[in-house]
Amino acid sequence: MRTDEPELVDHHCHGIRRGEIDARAVGSLLTESDSSPPPGTSFFDSQLGFAVRRWCAPVLGLPERAGEAEYLERRRELGSAEAGRALLAAAGLAVLCVDDGFPAAELLTVAEMADLSGRPARRVVRLEAVAEAVAASGGPAAGFAEAFARRLAHECSSPEVVGLKSVIGYRLGLDFEACPPELSAVVTAAGEWLRASAGKAGAAPLRSEVLLRHVLYTGARHGAENALPLQFHTGLGDTSLHLRRVDPLHLTAFLRQVQQQGTQVVLLHGYPYHRHAAYLAHVFPHAWVDVGLSLNYVGASAQRVLSEVLELAPFGKVLFSTDAYGLPELYHLGAVLFRRAMAGLGEEAVRAGDWSAGDAERVAHLVAGGNARRLYPRLGC
Amino acid sequence: MRTDEPELVDHHCHGIRRGEIDARAVGSLLTESDSSPPPGTSFFDSQLGFAVRRWCAPVLGLPERAGEAEYLERRRELGSAEAGRALLAAAGLAVLCVDDGFPAAELLTVAEMADLSGRPARRVVRLEAVAEAVAASGGPAAGFAEAFARRLAHECSSPEVVGLKSVIGYRLGLDFEACPPELSAVVTAAGEWLRASAGKAGAAPLRSEVLLRHVLYTGARHGAENALPLQFHTGLGDTSLHLRRVDPLHLTAFLRQVQQQGTQVVLLHGYPYHRHAAYLAHVFPHAWVDVGLSLNYVGASAQRVLSEVLELAPFGKVLFSTDAYGLPELYHLGAVLFRRAMAGLGEEAVRAGDWSAGDAERVAHLVAGGNARRLYPRLGC
Amino acid sequence: MRTDEPELVDHHCHGIRRGEIDARAVGSLLTESDSSPPPGTSFFDSQLGFAVRRWCAPVLGLPERAGEAEYLERRRELGSAEAGRALLAAAGLAVLCVDDGFPAAELLTVAEMADLSGRPARRVVRLEAVAEAVAASGGPAAGFAEAFARRLAHECSSPEVVGLKSVIGYRLGLDFEACPPELSAVVTAAGEWLRASAGKAGAAPLRSEVLLRHVLYTGARHGAENALPLQFHTGLGDTSLHLRRVDPLHLTAFLRQVQQQGTQVVLLHGYPYHRHAAYLAHVFPHAWVDVGLSLNYVGASAQRVLSEVLELAPFGKVLFSTDAYGLPELYHLGAVLFRRAMAGLGEEAVRAGDWSAGDAERVAHLVAGGNARRLYPRLGC
Repeated sequence: MRTDEPELVDHHCHGIRRGEIDARAVGSLLTESDSSPPPGTSFFDSQLGFAVRRWCAPVLGLPERAGEAEYLERRRELGSAEAGRALLAAAGLAVLCVDDGFPAAELLTVAEMADLSGRPARRVVRLEAVAEAVAASGGPAAGFAEAFARRLAHECSSPEVVGLKSVIGYRLGLDFEACPPELSAVVTAAGEWLRASAGKAGAAPLRSEVLLRHVLYTGARHGAENALPLQFHTGLGDTSLHLRRVDPLHLTAFLRQVQQQGTQVVLLHGYPYHRHAAYLAHVFPHAWVDVGLSLNYVGASAQRVLSEVLELAPFGKVLFSTDAYGLPELYHLGAVLFRRAMAGLGEEAVRAGDWSAGDAERVAHLVAGGNARRLYPRLGC
Repeated sequence: MRTDEPELVDHHCHGIRRGEIDARAVGSLLTESDSSPPPGTSFFDSQLGFAVRRWCAPVLGLPERAGEAEYLERRRELGSAEAGRALLAAAGLAVLCVDDGFPAAELLTVAEMADLSGRPARRVVRLEAVAEAVAASGGPAAGFAEAFARRLAHECSSPEVVGLKSVIGYRLGLDFEACPPELSAVVTAAGEWLRASAGKAGAAPLRSEVLLRHVLYTGARHGAENALPLQFHTGLGDTSLHLRRVDPLHLTAFLRQVQQQGTQVVLLHGYPYHRHAAYLAHVFPHAWVDVGLSLNYVGASAQRVLSEVLELAPFGKVLFSTDAYGLPELYHLGAVLFRRAMAGLGEEAVRAGDWSAGDAERVAHLVAGGNARRLYPRLGC
Repeated sequence: MRTDEPELVDHHCHGIRRGEIDARAVGSLLTESDSSPPPGTSFFDSQLGFAVRRWCAPVLGLPERAGEAEYLERRRELGSAEAGRALLAAAGLAVLCVDDGFPAAELLTVAEMADLSGRPARRVVRLEAVAEAVAASGGPAAGFAEAFARRLAHECSSPEVVGLKSVIGYRLGLDFEACPPELSAVVTAAGEWLRASAGKAGAAPLRSEVLLRHVLYTGARHGAENALPLQFHTGLGDTSLHLRRVDPLHLTAFLRQVQQQGTQVVLLHGYPYHRHAAYLAHVFPHAWVDVGLSLNYVGASAQRVLSEVLELAPFGKVLFSTDAYGLPELYHLGAVLFRRAMAGLGEEAVRAGDWSAGDAERVAHLVAGGNARRLYPRLGC
């Protein structure tokens, strides 16, 4: 990172996988697929894989574009901790906002991510994970709604929490009925869920449409009242989602509903519906669009995808993130691919006379971190 | 405009806002949002805003890419009329086809637009506005259908009328039931609407699904019989529409229905579904695709968006327009961004050997105005 | 074709139109429209038409970018057979996999395509055509399911057969109910179809939702058991389809269902939903994405469309094809536009440092034919 480059606020990422991981695990973290690579193929044979070899190999002391086998061997030699430290340092992130709501035992915690990166880390609270924690601790169905609200408030009372996140896109799709459910329906659904979870180690994953909507609308209000923006998974993700159902435009009615109460809504990823997300950020003052995850996956095409987002999105509403998960490579790639795409896009616009050099610098600054600092008042660093 | 450049037929635009407007109003006309810019942002911080500073500032005597404050101050000094005249002259449009169906009092009329621009202006009749005028003048529900047909015929009897327009996409979506309603249903719906409008200054906005379909199918037939192409709003627009419901592909069944009767259907804007609109223009001989509005909004990316339209659209079915509304800047930008995108695309294709120089010139001529002259037989200038 | 260029396996094409064809027929084979070109336009005025003039004219002894009239005249002089031979030789395909399930009398057969091209030709069996052949030969409704299975097995027993194809997208859309129908429903539907077809020269086209699903699921299983990948028409096609209904994402549930049994699913064309198809190839190990047809239609923009596919698609799951139909020009164009797009994309990535020269060569090899050789074990040449 050159010192005149804008600071990067990673407003949405996850933890790194704990301990040593083998070549197979590295590959599996380079894809959204939950299967092994088909015979004769490698997950390294993709824009993301090529980007790892190009940008991460030098960080680990190899030449650019080192081969897959060489890269994996070098990574093994260094060990996870050293590779992780090197790659996170290279990323040069100013602050990391970690969604720790996913199967957490195998991932580094927020505090550990701060340690490893040497940068401040903040926490994003996943609504469904809070609900699952409530269900895991039992209690009567009639008290679920109150217990959830209490627990959510408790979790968010920590100063390290800067935002909320919903994965209703994964669990149900974004084409949910856009209204909070009746309380009586919540009680009934909570009863069924609690019974299904009884006697198990943790709660069954939250999949009830009624409860997902209840949790979402409760979270949206809590976010509005506590300056916690609400992030949504939209667009590409792993095998368990139905891509058509996570088109961010499905959130149109929801956006209208929460506009007055002041919920700030962040549309994560979006790809291949990123132009749709940009449209929502254009027409709704409380909608924001993120470019994380997609830039990593499209690698050499990152500039085009970023440019498509910036067609319609107001420059004050676009957010950098890495959405890195599991592999330290992904934090570095997220940072470097964004920096390069943003710089390339700006240089092209300046060369064509469309933007001034100052314009390009200012837009880069906004997207890299300025917008996030405005959006997340509790960032505090 | 160089004299060897193709003439621009603006087959779809609106009137300029009447009188002096303040900085806030200028900003609000640079976005499809109906809200104020969120704190810390400006509607000038967008591809469209940057394009205004780049292309319109010199027309008003400022350097290219002048700052927002400087631009607004200069605009105020000059006054709306002088700024308007300068920007419209710079646009160099051959003829303007003005849809005057939107809240007209605050916008210049067709005749006033002709005066200000010094160019011939023609009129596009908005079907829903005609229906609302009929409703505003009262009359029995049983006579609504006949009164609408009579009024439509009357409006269109003026030689200045060159086309029709439907905003059913805004009012209902394009995913309407693709058949004209029964006359009895029209009478019932008209009765409800007339009662709701009674005693008010004008009619309540037309929102009845039955009446919107009746008005549309009546207009489609009238257009076929009177050489008046029917324009549809599709794709991006203001906050009141649901973008998913204005995907032009929703018009597939309608297109099949009106093909034999000879209605020419113009798919306006289309973005981000412009490739879908281009597909319809490819397979249906009576479907046409427009590149207005989107080129303005995407600014520096106009060439890519135009190029995406030209992937599948027959070159003889693509139409330039500005879709400018309210601000004289938008007519100039629509013209200059189209000219530049078209020229850039042609130069690239010629450099790559894909097109001959004559091909590039001919395609530019078709899209700029040649296709519109073929499509709108009543243009007459 | 330079000798160091990767061999092209055309895993999906059709036969050339038999005999001499006039200028009108040539034009009609340059479009997916089933109408005549609207007055004042020509089907040559499109990216595809310009590409024919650019790439095919020299093969027929004309200068690059010869005019339409000159091109048609030269074609007529040479005659279909000589033009066909010249264009197929120029295409330089290693092997052609011909879907011969479309109105076959007017098209060259698989064997005739091998003769004309001088290259091995293989056959792709269209499931719906097999069902229609069964229906045409009569028999009781109760025996339809068995007769279909027997006939399919018989057809596929020929060593020239390398794959299966479904056109359920055309007949019904891909948004079919994702489960095989009950056998009793199959019998009922077969009865209706057989009665409707009785006394006619051939069977009525298969349009029954029940039978289309039965035929599809039977084919999927047969394919899994016999190493025959199952191709699906998705995305753009002729006027008879509804584009929204052939978004490949509609196949998500089907893909999940056939994953365990081992059916390999090939998503043909895809455009303008090609990023969606690439996503499916990314997350599902048994999904593959094809770039045929779309590259021909978008002509000068082929590199961008190919690049969009390669954003998310694993490089080991992308397949070249021509999807050429009727005109020998389309085989040559499919080959040359793919080669150029792939080479251009690779060169750009190498110049930017994103890929090594070896990477570019390897990806080109995979997409051109290496992936097809892995996917189609019965290719055998």
